[in-house]
Amino acid sequence: MQNFAFHNPTKIVFGKGTVSQLGGLVAPFGKTVLLVYGSGSIKRTGLYDEVADQLRSVGAKVVELSGIEPNPRLTSVRRGIELCRAEGVDFVLAVGGGSVLDAAKAIAAGARYDGDVWDFFMHKAKIADALPMGSVLTLSATGSEMNGNAVISNWETKQKRSFGSIHTYPRFSVLDPTLTFSVPRDQTVNGVVDIMSHVFEQYFSLTTDVPLQERLCESILLTVIENAEKALEKPDDYAARANLMLCGTMALNGGLISVGMANDWASHGIEHEISAIYDIPHGAGLSIVFPNWMRYVYESRIDRFVQYAERVWGIERGGKSDEDMALAGINATRAFFTRIGAPATLSFYDIGEEHLDVMAREAVLFGPIGSFKKLNEKDVKEILTLAL
Amino acid sequence: MQNFAFHNPTKIVFGKGTVSQLGGLVAPFGKTVLLVYGSGSIKRTGLYDEVADQLRSVGAKVVELSGIEPNPRLTSVRRGIELCRAEGVDFVLAVGGGSVLDAAKAIAAGARYDGDVWDFFMHKAKIADALPMGSVLTLSATGSEMNGNAVISNWETKQKRSFGSIHTYPRFSVLDPTLTFSVPRDQTVNGVVDIMSHVFEQYFSLTTDVPLQERLCESILLTVIENAEKALEKPDDYAARANLMLCGTMALNGGLISVGMANDWASHGIEHEISAIYDIPHGAGLSIVFPNWMRYVYESRIDRFVQYAERVWGIERGGKSDEDMALAGINATRAFFTRIGAPATLSFYDIGEEHLDVMAREAVLFGPIGSFKKLNEKDVKEILTLAL
Repeated sequence: MQNFAFHNPTKIVFGKGTVSQLGGLVAPFGKTVLLVYGSGSIKRTGLYDEVADQLRSVGAKVVELSGIEPNPRLTSVRRGIELCRAEGVDFVLAVGGGSVLDAAKAIAAGARYDGDVWDFFMHKAKIADALPMGSVLTLSATGSEMNGNAVISNWETKQKRSFGSIHTYPRFSVLDPTLTFSVPRDQTVNGVVDIMSHVFEQYFSLTTDVPLQERLCESILLTVIENAEKALEKPDDYAARANLMLCGTMALNGGLISVGMANDWASHGIEHEISAIYDIPHGAGLSIVFPNWMRYVYESRIDRFVQYAERVWGIERGGKSDEDMALAGINATRAFFTRIGAPATLSFYDIGEEHLDVMAREAVLFGPIGSFKKLNEKDVKEILTLAL
Repeated sequence: MQNFAFHNPTKIVFGKGTVSQLGGLVAPFGKTVLLVYGSGSIKRTGLYDEVADQLRSVGAKVVELSGIEPNPRLTSVRRGIELCRAEGVDFVLAVGGGSVLDAAKAIAAGARYDGDVWDFFMHKAKIADALPMGSVLTLSATGSEMNGNAVISNWETKQKRSFGSIHTYPRFSVLDPTLTFSVPRDQTVNGVVDIMSHVFEQYFSLTTDVPLQERLCESILLTVIENAEKALEKPDDYAARANLMLCGTMALNGGLISVGMANDWASHGIEHEISAIYDIPHGAGLSIVFPNWMRYVYESRIDRFVQYAERVWGIERGGKSDEDMALAGINATRAFFTRIGAPATLSFYDIGEEHLDVMAREAVLFGPIGSFKKLNEKDVKEILTLAL
């Protein structure tokens, strides 16, 4: 186990009907609230009215920023920052999925920074302060509700980049599983893949002597696998939706499940390059990339892949070699993704070889990526080629 | 799963040599520090000097309170509160095990309260504020390093009582596993039993549809069982000590592993009555109480005990009935405690029937205890009698 620091100050308020606590949660942070949301599905479901009532009940003045994109764009973030300055916003409230939360975090950080917010994503400046922000989550996927990370797309430069800061942890996140009942099938699937991928990025590690962390990772994977198809079959299955929501939050809650472990995150880096150019859903991109990443890297530490096959997929050793076990676990991952309807190849989105070189070059912009196996430009190109 | 709120603001700094970060961690909270510690073992190990150097390096004025007892006493807490007031203390730093941390929390809360600190333990007042406190942990056991709970003994009234508050979470806890290398064998054993008992209090629950939480609990139990004997055989086994330390913290970190679940805590209540009168180590008392509690209550929800036997102790179903499985799991628990040297009966401490009635009555002072099975005075007396 490596030395580590862990600090996650986000308060979670979880369960059916908890949006009714929103007013009291927002009130301590001031009077002027920037309400950030997406395409307007929250108006159809009635959530918008409920949130507005809560804010009104504590006398908040509401400034709105709607239309946050599924891969949230720098232009929206800049618009939000301008609103914060013009209206003297005290608090940023995100109502939506990970994209809306990420945009809200970038706005909160940018509003307290004199330079351009994109500096944070290009490692040109560090976040030293941010407006307080909070969230009402409507999608189980990114874990953004309990961490300080944000991923934003710069459509002009075709770059999709992330930051992480202690200053951009939500002060609170309201997690009501019933709000995810109306999430369409494909978004539910993408969320499941995203949650599992977050665990993979932490679980496939070269760090040894971390038996508790390994088991915490496996606990989430097993629970997601067990509940995903239940939620797909019966979208209003409260227990299944609640279990997925809790798994999504725990999978990336400031890195608790992998404290003291080297993380990888190469697959996320590769996926970001794909969706930076093609604007495909993040979870779908991960479904395409991850099994291919696994096939490319498993020899770095075959015992971890053997353990994965045994503990997560229940594959029995029998007379199988380590290699056979590892590959069986990888194949089981692919088969599960396919069974729930997640895509397997870039060609599913009509993506060919045209931009693979650009993606590979951009993926290693700040140097080789990953730690389970360090990947250079050539490695990334090979994984992308496997994914065609 | 039940609705829940979760908020754990404690920062954890974990690993070998992390005491070197102490000065920087304390500095933001002010200049006058109350240093709370126990019998003086930290002077023998050199930790005292290291802590003093760190505090000196940031120009802190140090006020000392030493001699905190293994079952920390109200008299010591009151002495600490007086010191805080007399010296204008800004920050309370606990250096030691759970007892020292608990005393420091009670001091921190009492120093910001006009009435008597014992009010908090007798449910006569709620903690509304506390001095900031932090810790350097020297023993893996109570989880006090990452929660807001404290247990204090009132030796005059023979009462051992607890409180919990968001205001008494440590602002930081420094967890260096090498500081536990010198923990004597019996204290290591008691710590192991304490950690496992904290998980039991959460795991044996009537709440259903909590598969992730169940697995998180099982993950800790499996990891403790796997590492306890390694640490006992080789007290300076870093990996084993680090794993136990992380398990201790995770087992009771504000209830993260059992969010949305009814907790029990009856066994702790019963043990507190024993050690309130006989001053035996808490972990030893739990080793005596818990298997007997299990035998008394398992029929409340036999499937949870069957799962416990299967997943934690690897007991194979074969042709066994639910009852046989449950009892096999309970027996495995007892056998493990005995194998590592934890006591099985009250008679080990020459405790007879003399005070069982008082203990049973005091245990239910505020009403029946437990939720897996609600226990009244008669039930407690029966469990204590089983433990003779």
